[in-house]
Amino acid sequence: MIAEIISTGDEVLTGTVVDSNAAYIAARLYEIGIPVGRHVSVGDELKRMADVLSEAGKRADIGVVTGGLGPTVDDITAQAAAAAAGVDLQPNPTARAYIEEFFKRFNRPLSESEAKQGDLPAGAQPILNPVGTAPGFSMNIGGCRFYFLPGVPFEMRRIMKDNVIPALEARYCKGENRNYYREKCLSLFGLPESRVNERLVDLTVVPGDVRIGMLSEFPVIHVKLSAYGRNPDHLSAAIENASASVMDRIGEFVYSDSGQTMEEVVGALLAGRPATLALAESCTGGLIGHRITNVAGSSGYFAGSIVTYANKAKKDLLGVSADTLEAHGAVSEEVVREMAAGTKRVSATDYGLAVSGVAGPGGGTAEKPVGTVCIGLCGPEISFAKCCYFPFDNRLANKRIFAEAALDTLRRKLIGAAEFKWDYKGE
Amino acid sequence: MIAEIISTGDEVLTGTVVDSNAAYIAARLYEIGIPVGRHVSVGDELKRMADVLSEAGKRADIGVVTGGLGPTVDDITAQAAAAAAGVDLQPNPTARAYIEEFFKRFNRPLSESEAKQGDLPAGAQPILNPVGTAPGFSMNIGGCRFYFLPGVPFEMRRIMKDNVIPALEARYCKGENRNYYREKCLSLFGLPESRVNERLVDLTVVPGDVRIGMLSEFPVIHVKLSAYGRNPDHLSAAIENASASVMDRIGEFVYSDSGQTMEEVVGALLAGRPATLALAESCTGGLIGHRITNVAGSSGYFAGSIVTYANKAKKDLLGVSADTLEAHGAVSEEVVREMAAGTKRVSATDYGLAVSGVAGPGGGTAEKPVGTVCIGLCGPEISFAKCCYFPFDNRLANKRIFAEAALDTLRRKLIGAAEFKWDYKGE
Repeated sequence: MIAEIISTGDEVLTGTVVDSNAAYIAARLYEIGIPVGRHVSVGDELKRMADVLSEAGKRADIGVVTGGLGPTVDDITAQAAAAAAGVDLQPNPTARAYIEEFFKRFNRPLSESEAKQGDLPAGAQPILNPVGTAPGFSMNIGGCRFYFLPGVPFEMRRIMKDNVIPALEARYCKGENRNYYREKCLSLFGLPESRVNERLVDLTVVPGDVRIGMLSEFPVIHVKLSAYGRNPDHLSAAIENASASVMDRIGEFVYSDSGQTMEEVVGALLAGRPATLALAESCTGGLIGHRITNVAGSSGYFAGSIVTYANKAKKDLLGVSADTLEAHGAVSEEVVREMAAGTKRVSATDYGLAVSGVAGPGGGTAEKPVGTVCIGLCGPEISFAKCCYFPFDNRLANKRIFAEAALDTLRRKLIGAAEFKWDYKGE
Repeated sequence: MIAEIISTGDEVLTGTVVDSNAAYIAARLYEIGIPVGRHVSVGDELKRMADVLSEAGKRADIGVVTGGLGPTVDDITAQAAAAAAGVDLQPNPTARAYIEEFFKRFNRPLSESEAKQGDLPAGAQPILNPVGTAPGFSMNIGGCRFYFLPGVPFEMRRIMKDNVIPALEARYCKGENRNYYREKCLSLFGLPESRVNERLVDLTVVPGDVRIGMLSEFPVIHVKLSAYGRNPDHLSAAIENASASVMDRIGEFVYSDSGQTMEEVVGALLAGRPATLALAESCTGGLIGHRITNVAGSSGYFAGSIVTYANKAKKDLLGVSADTLEAHGAVSEEVVREMAAGTKRVSATDYGLAVSGVAGPGGGTAEKPVGTVCIGLCGPEISFAKCCYFPFDNRLANKRIFAEAALDTLRRKLIGAAEFKWDYKGE
């Protein structure tokens, strides 16, 4: 059994929009044990779209198509499906009634082009859209069962979850031929992709047919282990086995094996003690506070951040001494130590975490080039400060890696792990 | 003339990675006037990949293929290309020499699997990779000229820019048959996609064959006007004409017609006066400061942000009065007015901008539900405060829209525009 995914629309084809729908659909299909043969994107052109549907109808058992179900003249997917199946487009009473009801509910007049969304290929079954006006539909073309869904991501996701996946599970995923899928994600910080790859290269094929994939979300890398087969217990055991091999090679850099972000891991550690945190940020400009407060419930352990972009603010708000600033410069172990102590004192928290660095493009010197960051941490029995260097010359990349490094420093102290040994040399 | 784009690799096919390469390549091809017929993604499976290449070779004139050129057993693109063209894979002296040189330069031993990257289909021309070891190559399959590139985005982009685009321009984009492409992007904040669509729906086809596309990057919407044809002057005039029609309908919400972000627009306005800014953030947690400092040179006008997540910090650091907090609550016009004045005073800046709101999921009340935000602005002859409500219940979405709203408030004051009339009712 094999599925194909088809994305329609000029905006995908011309590169105006990155097609994230196909990845979402592929991941959901793999989860229920349905492998995918191809993704195809095609523009709003009737002949070409009908060709793509006919060809997929010959190759695949299941087709999931997104986009082109709306009211505008560009929305021609139902027409293309009718052409590919050799049937007419005709008003579908269920779909029409649903659209009329939708417009009535919101007191909006129903235009002819809106009503047209209820015209489906003869023989198609409508799939009602709980969160929008354009109904989806399912039908056979060639030997393939096609599911046509709206292209708006949240509408597509809702219909996939509520309708398509249950329908596919009922139809294809039962009995002894059912395939299972298991996965595990190890998230790490401190190595570039090339170095992770070097450490894992001999594991390309591991026992039990576990696939190892790498996904870089700079500066974090996710190593994804996945396995697919008939026996779910064997799959889980094979994944755990492979995970142990991967951990042997990169374990010291892994901060989560359950998909948590660094700020979620740090938040859970602070909430678990319980302990409170205040920040003092310079070059990161507020990014660390933003990330910490992305976690619901962070008000339980996070007091705030003092973003002192100017040196005057470092003195006035954090009590950094003018002498220290003059003697060592704003990017120094001495200054971040005082910044961390200052924000801890001002906010009366258990921990103070401070960052000062050179994000670029300007501001670098021979001694402290762009990519230099100093991290200070002050807490119960801790007064830590260290500077390090990341070899990137992009301002946003540096802000991101500096923020990650600061949070990782705190995480390592909270779990009593070894100090960081990030290794980006030669990148 | 028509191009096809092919992405290879299990990580794309299974949805582990969203394929952003295809969108990048499509946009570059359209820019030089080459339209794209399809994108296809296919996994690391020899037979299926060779089929995809042969089929594209029959349909298209130009093929751009990414991924699968590396040293691992999964990297089979060169093999599939050879199979599709009916030729052998053989060591290419130029590619081999380049790889040997690359490894020598970095003092790394050259393994057999690394050396294998120099094996190309017979007759292929290598495209040397200035930023990685895997060489690309170009060759004919069927009637189509194919360009095979590495899948690592920055390597692919570099080779597209330095090699493939110039080669295509030299080969296809000269003489009187040359096609041109022009585009313009209008970025707006304050309306949801559905409402922008309603206002523009009658413009689906505008004079001069200008296409109107919408790209939502929550909470911002980009309206992209593009045109494609033989006469570049006509195209530019048609775009300007269409742009005027679009501005008639949504102009009051547009903050940039040149691809600038809101923080770049605000930054340029502050730098132009010149004037300085300090922030007081609560629920946004540092996001506004992060965004302002994403702009290189922001240290010229940005003093810092005081992120007062806790009420105690609002009093201690910003001088908000305990009475005001008690009488009106932290999310109120009175409190953000004092926060804005406080951060302006403490940092001695020209402007103080403050935000306090309920991002959720908890913390909402009947009077101040999740989605409520208050924005305060204090500056020369300005003491402004206003609360408003956005109908979203997602914490991250709310942080993003609150930050955008605060920056837009400042932008409107700086250019003397009307106060915001954001309209998300019924979303």
